[in-house]
Parts: sequence; structure tokens; C-alpha cells
Amino acid sequence: MHNLTKMRIEKQTSEVFEAIVDPTKIGSFWFSSSSERWEQGKTITLEYKEYNAIGTIAVLEIIDNQKIVYQWDPKEDGHIVTITFIAQSDKSTVVEVSEEGFNKEDPDFISQLIGNKEGWVFMLTCLKGYLEFGVNKLRTGLTE
Amino acid sequence: MHNLTKMRIEKQTSEVFEAIVDPTKIGSFWFSSSSERWEQGKTITLEYKEYNAIGTIAVLEIIDNQKIVYQWDPKEDGHIVTITFIAQSDKSTVVEVSEEGFNKEDPDFISQLIGNKEGWVFMLTCLKGYLEFGVNKLRTGLTE
Repeated sequence: MHNLTKMRIEKQTSEVFEAIVDPTKIGSFWFSSSSERWEQGKTITLEYKEYNAIGTIAVLEIIDNQKIVYQWDPKEDGHIVTITFIAQSDKSTVVEVSEEGFNKEDPDFISQLIGNKEGWVFMLTCLKGYLEFGVNKLRTGLTE
Repeated sequence: MHNLTKMRIEKQTSEVFEAIVDPTKIGSFWFSSSSERWEQGKTITLEYKEYNAIGTIAVLEIIDNQKIVYQWDPKEDGHIVTITFIAQSDKSTVVEVSEEGFNKEDPDFISQLIGNKEGWVFMLTCLKGYLEFGVNKLRTGLTE
């Protein structure tokens, strides 16, 4: 079982890819900080100050401007996320995010899927706002 | 079973409420058009040109700057949506959207909940982008 979310962004794939892997950019639309540039084989520490959250990811695969695969919290065998950057004929990019690892037997299965979808739609909308309109303060409005 | 989504918007309740009920504003963040101002007892036609979608809602209850309750597609006994505007001490507003009417017996139950959550997170993030930053073109990026 996986969650798939797609967003069209009116920028070329290289610009969308860089926004995610470059630690000087991520704070404008997603985590408040990333410990270093995302590269294949690295373990990265991500912080979300506004939600008092900190975590690690293991970057499993990177194809520049095309694909990022990582695992949340590798010591805990976390979910696998695949971000795909699909160039469109008009030079825009469709970003697809697929998160896998949900367990149908978990009593919180449905709420996990819904919460996860919420997070990805919010992140992708904030990414679009940042890249297309330079808005870097959308990223903290979602509340529990 | 219902979906609940919450977003903090750095504007007063009256401004957030007006963005939804005023047909000259809704096209900046949600539907492309609304047939008239939302008022209790009215049936409103909403169009989403970019997704080739058109629908009607019945406005069941309005408390100015506090609450909107409406039913999607009243002829088909559609879901009930309650939008609540909660004033914060710093003069910002927390907007809560609750949609009810999902049927656990429906084979598409989970995907309906997830798709519905996607729609509301997207709408509320676009609303925040519009009211706080004047961005009126976020609203068409989400793709199937």
C-alpha cells in the first residue's frame, strides 16, 4: 500500500530537484534545516523546528534531476519515499511522490495514510509557492 | 467517519470568511467561479474550469465570520462540510474543515478519504497563499 501525490510546477526539473537536495533551499518550503546536500549513500538529519521534530533519512538513490529515493528513519526500518521529476513538453515539471511501507494490519492504518497524504500535499503546494512565486513562509500553517 | 483539516492563517476571521463567501475572491484560491455570494438557504453553482468540474452546494447555515455549513450536491444527498473560523489571540485565524458522510461499507472508502484530505489540504494552503501573500495561481497544480 502506498500514497501517491502529484503536483505540476512551472519550473524545469533541475530547479525543482535542487530545491530539495540543496540545504540552503529546503527551509523555504519544507524542513527548517537539512544537515547537508542530499547525495546517494548519505544519512541526512532533517529538522522541523516549528513542529519540534527531528529525524534522519538514508538517501538510497539519486539520479540528478530525475529521481530521489530515500528511507525515513533507517534504524527503524522506515517507509521508502520515491520522488520523481518528470519533464513536461512546456518545460514545467510534474513532481510525483510515492511513499511505501504502510501496514494494513496496523490499527492506525487509515489515519496514517490520511496523515501522510496531508503532509505530501502540503509540502508540494509549499514547494510550488516557493519556486513559482518566491513565497517562503507557507510551510508552517498546518495544525493538529 | 469524517475528515478534519486545520490551517492557521495570519489574517482576521472576517477576511478569511469573506474569501470563501465572496464570489469575486474564490477564483483566486479554490473554484474558478461561484454563482453568487454564499448565504444561508441558497443553492450555489461552483465551477472548476481547470478540472472540467461543475457542481452545486446547498448552504445550510452561516454565522458571519464564524461558521459555514453546506451540503455538496444536495439532490444526491452529498457530504456535509462544516468550515469553522476560530479567532486566535494574535489576531490570526485557525480554519477547520470537517467533511462528513463517508461510508465505511463503500469499496472506495479509503481512497475517498485520502482524495478528500488531498483536496482540503490543497484548498487551505492555496487560501493561505492568497490571503497572506497575494498568490492567486497556486490552485491548479494538483494532478491526477
